[in-house]
Amino acid sequence: MRSLRVGLAQINCTVGDLKGNATKICHFIDKAKALGVDLLAFPELAITGYPPEDLLLKPQFVNDNLRQLELIQKHSSDITVVVGFIDAKDDLYNAAAIIHDGKLASKYYKTYLPNYGVFDENRYFQAGTYCPIFVINGVNIGINICEDIWYPTGPTSLQAYAGAEMVVNINASPYHAGKRKFRERMLATRASDNLIIICYVNLVGGQDELVFDGGSMVINERGELIASGQQFEEDLVVVDLDLESVFCSRLNDPRHRKEKLKLETEEKPRQRIVVSEGENLKPKPSLPLREVKAYELLAEVYQALVLGTGDYVRKNGFKKVIIGLSGGIDSSLVAVIAVDALGAQNVIGISMPSSYSSSGSKADAQLLAQNLGIELKVIPIEDTFNSYLNMLAPSFTGTKPDVTEENIQARIRGNVLMALSNKYGWLPLTTGNKSETVTGYCTLYGDMAGGFAVIKDVPKTLVYQLARYRNSLSGKEIIPRSVLEKEPSAELAPNQRDVDTLPPYEILDPILQAYVEENKSSTQIVAMGFNKETVQRVIHMVDKSEYKRRQAAPGIKITPRAFGKDRRLPITNRYREK
Amino acid sequence: MRSLRVGLAQINCTVGDLKGNATKICHFIDKAKALGVDLLAFPELAITGYPPEDLLLKPQFVNDNLRQLELIQKHSSDITVVVGFIDAKDDLYNAAAIIHDGKLASKYYKTYLPNYGVFDENRYFQAGTYCPIFVINGVNIGINICEDIWYPTGPTSLQAYAGAEMVVNINASPYHAGKRKFRERMLATRASDNLIIICYVNLVGGQDELVFDGGSMVINERGELIASGQQFEEDLVVVDLDLESVFCSRLNDPRHRKEKLKLETEEKPRQRIVVSEGENLKPKPSLPLREVKAYELLAEVYQALVLGTGDYVRKNGFKKVIIGLSGGIDSSLVAVIAVDALGAQNVIGISMPSSYSSSGSKADAQLLAQNLGIELKVIPIEDTFNSYLNMLAPSFTGTKPDVTEENIQARIRGNVLMALSNKYGWLPLTTGNKSETVTGYCTLYGDMAGGFAVIKDVPKTLVYQLARYRNSLSGKEIIPRSVLEKEPSAELAPNQRDVDTLPPYEILDPILQAYVEENKSSTQIVAMGFNKETVQRVIHMVDKSEYKRRQAAPGIKITPRAFGKDRRLPITNRYREK
Repeated sequence: MRSLRVGLAQINCTVGDLKGNATKICHFIDKAKALGVDLLAFPELAITGYPPEDLLLKPQFVNDNLRQLELIQKHSSDITVVVGFIDAKDDLYNAAAIIHDGKLASKYYKTYLPNYGVFDENRYFQAGTYCPIFVINGVNIGINICEDIWYPTGPTSLQAYAGAEMVVNINASPYHAGKRKFRERMLATRASDNLIIICYVNLVGGQDELVFDGGSMVINERGELIASGQQFEEDLVVVDLDLESVFCSRLNDPRHRKEKLKLETEEKPRQRIVVSEGENLKPKPSLPLREVKAYELLAEVYQALVLGTGDYVRKNGFKKVIIGLSGGIDSSLVAVIAVDALGAQNVIGISMPSSYSSSGSKADAQLLAQNLGIELKVIPIEDTFNSYLNMLAPSFTGTKPDVTEENIQARIRGNVLMALSNKYGWLPLTTGNKSETVTGYCTLYGDMAGGFAVIKDVPKTLVYQLARYRNSLSGKEIIPRSVLEKEPSAELAPNQRDVDTLPPYEILDPILQAYVEENKSSTQIVAMGFNKETVQRVIHMVDKSEYKRRQAAPGIKITPRAFGKDRRLPITNRYREK
Repeated sequence: MRSLRVGLAQINCTVGDLKGNATKICHFIDKAKALGVDLLAFPELAITGYPPEDLLLKPQFVNDNLRQLELIQKHSSDITVVVGFIDAKDDLYNAAAIIHDGKLASKYYKTYLPNYGVFDENRYFQAGTYCPIFVINGVNIGINICEDIWYPTGPTSLQAYAGAEMVVNINASPYHAGKRKFRERMLATRASDNLIIICYVNLVGGQDELVFDGGSMVINERGELIASGQQFEEDLVVVDLDLESVFCSRLNDPRHRKEKLKLETEEKPRQRIVVSEGENLKPKPSLPLREVKAYELLAEVYQALVLGTGDYVRKNGFKKVIIGLSGGIDSSLVAVIAVDALGAQNVIGISMPSSYSSSGSKADAQLLAQNLGIELKVIPIEDTFNSYLNMLAPSFTGTKPDVTEENIQARIRGNVLMALSNKYGWLPLTTGNKSETVTGYCTLYGDMAGGFAVIKDVPKTLVYQLARYRNSLSGKEIIPRSVLEKEPSAELAPNQRDVDTLPPYEILDPILQAYVEENKSSTQIVAMGFNKETVQRVIHMVDKSEYKRRQAAPGIKITPRAFGKDRRLPITNRYREK
């Protein structure tokens, strides 16, 4: 039986850590060789990490990446390795190196460059224009990169009809909720449409706003998932591919022959590059059984938040984080995520009560900290707040208290967190959710102050679901029941409630999703059944708070449209829908 | 003599203000008609303003822009109008409408979409693929958009060799220092290479980080500038073009015939679209004499800052601004710019002395305010600073004062400005220069707190030059001499000086320019003659402060590479040059 042992090395790279990434790549090469892997694939731009953004405009950076590629090449005796790197020829290319037995056998350049959503690849790369077949151990293999496989008539089809029996598709595909399923469906269709085995290897790890969720897959020519990698963890997937079966399927499928004829007459014949002719007949060790965790949607989102937070903290050289604990649901969820990401010993809660803080909230913060086993510092802000009021009294003569005084409290808390950060090197995590961030129901330099905004892309209703999910994992109320049940309030003024300013979250969140994530017009949203005045009020809040979001800390993307690179709106913007 | 009266309407549009922009366009149409203009051109995307960014992803926005185009069309009897808009056919196009006598005669789609620097046009638009010749009043005219003219073998050449006698190139070209001269040189070459008249019309006005500087130009087929628009102001340039002269030049230039032959055989013949056959023989009013201000480089930069600041404030609906006046050079320059942009009655200085503020600095802030005729509020921060120290004392036990205490002072000042902003609706302008912003020598949420960062892209050495330039305009020391002469200091600790932390600015600024604007490596910068240790220290400061810049207010781009959209670096980034 013609077969090939393929390994998918789903690794957690760090942007810019060229040496560290190369060392990790070499380590996985060693592991794969011990398992008798013939062909080992790494993610897109594995050497540089993804996305390197404007580092790509530094010639030195590109040269340094090429030097690491040489070291990897020297480390690759007796194996074929496919690894993502940046090639610099006449221009820059998002490239895959095909290394065989210590030599750079060939290269493939990404054909479809994504330039939407969070992607800016046209800013940096020239698109590749050829997609050859590589003969590796006698097997005809197409290699392509990420976006390439999303096009039904793209490289995968061209390679399949030019004779490739399998495709290795290397990725840096960012996570959003449910994306793994979406990918699997597309890959299964692509595989069965083209009667080809697809080996999909994805990056894993957090990078600023993005989480790469791994979840590598091998899908056979019938569209069946035959192996997969863990989600949100490094992994090495090793599988033996049965290539006879591809040939057999093709003989029995009239579609394949017709489509092949069509493409062959339309396209120039593909180039064939022989990397290694003969099959590897050395005896191979038997493969260990693997168990791959399956995540439901809430669990998946939760894991993404844990990985994104942990990686931001670690990759930026921090050890400990601080979180302002108000006793509310948002800061409680962030604290639990931080503990799951970094361990209780690396999370410090800061309770900063004012006279408007309810005793319930103060007690809830205490109880949460106790449940989590984290240190809690209590720093009352009352005196400093009064000192501000005194300082500003001459300027405020004749005015009434308003949102100004509320913001001063939030900003004192921001300053306290930043002071602790400056003094001890702790990273402050902010606790604002998506519903607040998008309506501007938050204080710039106040509760928005901090280095990383963990739940920035999590709508409030999902915050509750995640909190309940996390409690269910422990089988006890880590986040106290009273936190889950009390009415949401910023507690910055007497008897304040979120619903005094915002519509109830069950109404707000679907409006926000329609307006922000789906770019629906107010007319369309009203037609969904929402009150016109409410819709217009919400849209107005969203539009006028762009300036706040521009100065917000980055946070983890978990929806199809998050903030930052994913949503680029002018601040100066007089557009108001009629 | 065959001639055509052309008008270039260099208008100040506001992004998203579709109705306001259309009204302005109609107003300029009226003005041009009164002057007997045959062909009137408006800037790129004049209807939407530039850049509309992700507003383009809202179908309603695109529809609303098309509705305004119809209104403009109805307003255009007895004249030909070229105006930038977004067309939605199978996809979105950055388009020019050719309207003649109330009818939409044709359209042109931008061929070259910029996707570098501050531009993201591949994110939104499909590129056009045809460049016809339009016959307007019997004259053969090529129309193209901005980037199109920067390509030597692009639409301009194709149109010229297919018979166009003149090209109308509509623009939204952002300013950086010296760019007008750079444009003029390119346009002159393009015109004389192709023996074609070029009518270049540019947008004017500030939009978030960008300033469009106008400076429209008409350049004849010999490369001579025959008319130009004001820089940094709205203007209507009207000029009579002598088309006989183009024909005559072509007959006498062997180059033209040879190049024409080459392109004609290589390219399909261009389409000819007849808009209006006959020459307009109606008598025309004589044109008034015009005087166009010429700006030297410092004056040009200064005007860009004034326009960018004024437009940000006005277009975002603010009237008054506040500025923390330390008595230093940066805040002094920002105050003068603000007064020039908005008038003294709309600028309020806030002096926030601490015990580290020198009496000289306090006096300088007073004197500056007096010279400018602006209100100055003095709000001492000492008590509130002490209140912070008390509040934090239990958390800081056993530690020594460090940068933490400095930052607390800066953040109190930030909070005071934000409180005044919240209470009275005044926009706080930040005062950090480029040398500080790029090295991170500034306090997040402290001196970085505010809505707009006027001199964010101005290196410190240029700050001094601009201050001296502005004083020279008044013929007196508006910015007091002591401000210009004293040693730079943040005054956040006893006897603090900038040189305790940073290299002298005469050394720092060229290093920063090489590293940040030119992406030179440390090796290259050392080879320029700088001390290796200094270069490495500066690069380290730049690299590790990316997180601060990500949360900074937007500011005006005046160099070839500013911050924000112009420079996109990951925060999580372990790349360190060896």
